[in-house]
Amino acid sequence: MMQELVQTAAPSPQDEPAFDAWVRTHVARIQALIEHHVPAHSVASSALAEAMHYAAALGGKRIRPLLVWAAGECFDGEPAALDAAACAVELVHAYSLVHDDLPCMDNDILRRGLPTVHVQFGQAMALLAGDALQSRAFEVLTSDPLVPPLIQARLCALLAGAIGADGMAGGQAIDLAATGQVLGTNALTNMHRRKTGALFKASLLMGLACANPDVLIDPVTAQCEQLLRRYADAIGLAFQVVDDVLDASSDSATLGKTAGKDAQQGKATFVTLLGLERAWALARELLSEALSAIEALPPVQRARAGHLITLAQRIVSRNH
Amino acid sequence: MMQELVQTAAPSPQDEPAFDAWVRTHVARIQALIEHHVPAHSVASSALAEAMHYAAALGGKRIRPLLVWAAGECFDGEPAALDAAACAVELVHAYSLVHDDLPCMDNDILRRGLPTVHVQFGQAMALLAGDALQSRAFEVLTSDPLVPPLIQARLCALLAGAIGADGMAGGQAIDLAATGQVLGTNALTNMHRRKTGALFKASLLMGLACANPDVLIDPVTAQCEQLLRRYADAIGLAFQVVDDVLDASSDSATLGKTAGKDAQQGKATFVTLLGLERAWALARELLSEALSAIEALPPVQRARAGHLITLAQRIVSRNH
Repeated sequence: MMQELVQTAAPSPQDEPAFDAWVRTHVARIQALIEHHVPAHSVASSALAEAMHYAAALGGKRIRPLLVWAAGECFDGEPAALDAAACAVELVHAYSLVHDDLPCMDNDILRRGLPTVHVQFGQAMALLAGDALQSRAFEVLTSDPLVPPLIQARLCALLAGAIGADGMAGGQAIDLAATGQVLGTNALTNMHRRKTGALFKASLLMGLACANPDVLIDPVTAQCEQLLRRYADAIGLAFQVVDDVLDASSDSATLGKTAGKDAQQGKATFVTLLGLERAWALARELLSEALSAIEALPPVQRARAGHLITLAQRIVSRNH
Repeated sequence: MMQELVQTAAPSPQDEPAFDAWVRTHVARIQALIEHHVPAHSVASSALAEAMHYAAALGGKRIRPLLVWAAGECFDGEPAALDAAACAVELVHAYSLVHDDLPCMDNDILRRGLPTVHVQFGQAMALLAGDALQSRAFEVLTSDPLVPPLIQARLCALLAGAIGADGMAGGQAIDLAATGQVLGTNALTNMHRRKTGALFKASLLMGLACANPDVLIDPVTAQCEQLLRRYADAIGLAFQVVDDVLDASSDSATLGKTAGKDAQQGKATFVTLLGLERAWALARELLSEALSAIEALPPVQRARAGHLITLAQRIVSRNH
């Protein structure tokens, strides 16, 4: 079924190498940004700097930065602002993984094929590394004089709003509170919209917010923002549905993290609730929804949305 | 010695009631801001909202917000910006206490005379509450349309720079790394300048940053900023020296937290390194240094610095 999906949704073959080259270029770019903003050394504490670097610099799919840049291309974003936003969302993602993996949370020992941060550096240092990665994200958003303060402030607002009590952390808290009870599909969807979806959406809206405020006139901006939110909601949830499918059907070596854990812990997943087949059908529906939002963009933006389209397809067709 | 110090440094008697009234007004103001920005209920997770409210709303000396407002008065800051800054620094302070108290860090069970957040809500919820308080601080800084984006961005930059790997979290990491070894005075000072001093300094500089950029002309701003940094360095360190003195000479009931803990754990403090008498002498010296920085302000700002002066005196003469 996964193969079928890839065939249905894949871009025309001549786009593939161009997209892959774009991904390689931008994965290298995020790596360089992280090495710059989160070096493995520091005047204060080298142990903390090493833990932060380990958490942020060693791998990851870099989907959130790619979403920032893809949205930025679509809306002609300022390059310096896009770099800051891309780096910030990845640092927040890294912080959230470090804290999620702690013994008091998911107690995970494997991430991206490596020991988790607390296994490598101890729990206290992992706690601090996560804390400091969060603040580093806001530092990155506000430290480049090439980024106009108006955009800096908007980026901070979007990121902060997405990752706190009503967003990412709120989703985690719902997950915690659900321990020992099985969530229904609506409750599971609500949890994931916050836990994963909020940062996906922020990445895309931050890409839009990097547009020179003079370039987009207001009615167009409002329309684009609404469509981008539709796209974001769809791919954010699709990402999680696919995660659950992969978790149920793949192994730890392929995933780079412990496979099958949610199901073992008796937690609801889209697969336990819907079964593998209907979960895949949901992922396909969500992909269609994301692509239809892109189709509805004004012609100028639609013409520049190629990477948003392929990213949506890849999010659904990935195998790890 | 403490009494003597109070007598030496106290403001003239007629200032006392006015200052106390100012403190009461502004402590009530920060309480109202926290109730507004960190309500005990949420659409996402009521448990998380309760834990955040418990951590931020139930007491505390509110020194950092008072520093924001005192600096703001001195430099004619925009009221809406000062409120946002005052609330943000207090939320960051609250987050840092929640994470510091966790079992993997200081493992403390008492704070402000109440069970610590993880004792009350569990470790995982305490972790998330701290995380979400940090992001709420940046949300508060960027959510009020009355605050110009230029000031919002500057406030975010100052706060983020102060609390991350080179500041507060870095100081914590130095503290962790020092477990089992006794720091010398220089290393202890370096640790505290980051762990406590950085957020004190940020509070003051954020107060200055709330000034309408048109009000202060550049040479004056630069001079004021330098003097404010001197004042901040001095009172930040004085605060910690006094903390150590109180920790060595007071009881848990008066402090509202576990007394004598650092010394019991074999950690260096200014009292173990210098003795009680020299530690007090250091606190007095630092107070003089802070006051001399204020004396050197330009006349207009000097005339409005009354609360900065009294705050410095109170920081040294407090008994909890």
